[in-house]
Amino acid sequence: MGDPAGIGAEVIVKALQLLKTPAEVITFGAHSPMLAAASAAGITPTWTRQAPSEPITFTRQPRCLLIDDELAGAHGPYAPDSQLGGQLSFGWVMRTIECVKAGAHAAVTGPISKLAWSLAGQAQFPGHTELFAQEFGSERYAMFFHAPPTDTAPGMNVILATVHIPLMHVARHLSVSRVIDTIELANETLKKLGIPDPSIAVCGLNPHAGEGGLLGVEDQTVIEPAVKHCAHNGIRVTGPHPADTIFSQALTTQQHRAKYDVVVAMYHDQGLIALKTLAWDRAVNVTVGLRATRTSPDHGTAFNIAGQNRANPGSMLAALNLALQL
Amino acid sequence: MGDPAGIGAEVIVKALQLLKTPAEVITFGAHSPMLAAASAAGITPTWTRQAPSEPITFTRQPRCLLIDDELAGAHGPYAPDSQLGGQLSFGWVMRTIECVKAGAHAAVTGPISKLAWSLAGQAQFPGHTELFAQEFGSERYAMFFHAPPTDTAPGMNVILATVHIPLMHVARHLSVSRVIDTIELANETLKKLGIPDPSIAVCGLNPHAGEGGLLGVEDQTVIEPAVKHCAHNGIRVTGPHPADTIFSQALTTQQHRAKYDVVVAMYHDQGLIALKTLAWDRAVNVTVGLRATRTSPDHGTAFNIAGQNRANPGSMLAALNLALQL
Repeated sequence: MGDPAGIGAEVIVKALQLLKTPAEVITFGAHSPMLAAASAAGITPTWTRQAPSEPITFTRQPRCLLIDDELAGAHGPYAPDSQLGGQLSFGWVMRTIECVKAGAHAAVTGPISKLAWSLAGQAQFPGHTELFAQEFGSERYAMFFHAPPTDTAPGMNVILATVHIPLMHVARHLSVSRVIDTIELANETLKKLGIPDPSIAVCGLNPHAGEGGLLGVEDQTVIEPAVKHCAHNGIRVTGPHPADTIFSQALTTQQHRAKYDVVVAMYHDQGLIALKTLAWDRAVNVTVGLRATRTSPDHGTAFNIAGQNRANPGSMLAALNLALQL
Repeated sequence: MGDPAGIGAEVIVKALQLLKTPAEVITFGAHSPMLAAASAAGITPTWTRQAPSEPITFTRQPRCLLIDDELAGAHGPYAPDSQLGGQLSFGWVMRTIECVKAGAHAAVTGPISKLAWSLAGQAQFPGHTELFAQEFGSERYAMFFHAPPTDTAPGMNVILATVHIPLMHVARHLSVSRVIDTIELANETLKKLGIPDPSIAVCGLNPHAGEGGLLGVEDQTVIEPAVKHCAHNGIRVTGPHPADTIFSQALTTQQHRAKYDVVVAMYHDQGLIALKTLAWDRAVNVTVGLRATRTSPDHGTAFNIAGQNRANPGSMLAALNLALQL
């Protein structure tokens, strides 16, 4: 569910109603925010409740099961950025991970507050991604973003070589092997998504991809060798490309596959500016390289609009659909 | 015209045919590439030719006048990235600048090759922007980009605080005064474009705008003081905002003005990834802060498609329209 004071409950309730693929969905969360969201949206609750102490049996049949901490004594109202919200949402993620280890096919995570996690004594994890990487023992993983095309707008895939670090530290975190790992993870992920021959574009780090060294050297010293290595190993990959013009060649519509199936970005904003400007309402974050499937809507807790029936479930729905596809 | 081996002649010929506002347009260039472009596109030439040695008289009446270096002995075919192309295109820009100093209302520049300029002994200028800044004695100037909305797609304005430098040098080029200058130039430019009360969003430098210092300090130490200074002086400006989500709040359609009229980006790709992903075919580059109006299409020479009647004149047309508007 993510933080109980955020929009997690609301986007879950709305997305479950829109979900077309039959699935057994087990939510770790709290009943009252989901009930309030359903009531505000005019949705009839379809979930059954179970206490956290009860064992979970996978029926492998379509159903919505809520493992409800309110049956174990938790109760709202839940405050934004609170220790309670952090304790609950951290616990829900941990039990989701246990559930996947026990045989669930995928995890979908709701938006959490890093401050709340920190207040709950979990400051060591910047977010879900690092927690999943630790729990599933992965050292070679990356954040991959998928925005599906709609009837009227194109979709796009992006993967990040570095994530939550100061911009001026990016170059020291990039290495030939890191860029190679990211390209390989992109290739593997696209194949899992049903593209047998993925075409991959890699961004340069500097403006104009360094313009032959005039505007920076990392494009030639780090990125180019990584691209050449992967191309030599049979991956359809080109670059480094100037980052400002490459994304427009990776816009896939429902009718037309773009020249590139994914763009490999060197840093957080390089990839996410394009993705979120184009598809802020339907982008999904996937942690790739895990021995498990984990997706997430690409938005935060949105504490400021929680409880107002204003949250858009598009990203959560896309996260559920992508988890089912994977 | 820009480089005679590029698509400059073609986009000029096509854009002049599409231009709806009556204007006296004086092109410094060469006849044969324009004639070839017109012939390939099925356009009847409407320009008159004049030798470079003849004096130019402003009629202030609609007309297309070509100041033709081929009447002074130049002749093609023109090769990409050549010394001749550099000599000609550099000379055309210099005469355009003289023309503006003599009373023309605006300059519109075609795409040039920096390598050709370098071969022609003009390596000291990375591009038009720096040349115009020197010729018009400006020390406080910036690159501003305007993408007009269309019937089906939104438009956007972006201004850059730094431009053609290695990404890892951006922080050392940013200062409170530089960010203030950029915000003020954005405000002045939008007023010239007819927006009496511009609303300005400023990007952070780091992911999540630094997340309170966890992901970098420049957002708090450099950008925030600049924003506060400008807000204190009456400019409607907010920030630093996370760069990945701010551009989607600056998309103005023909029906609806966005929350923000312009986004102030800290570096080249931060601003141009959003702009070019959204509007690669119609973005205009404006040098703001000059004592002159200078616009330019936001694309390069495209040597690889020159002479094939494949060039899209949208950006040149938008550059002409914006020059006329300013």
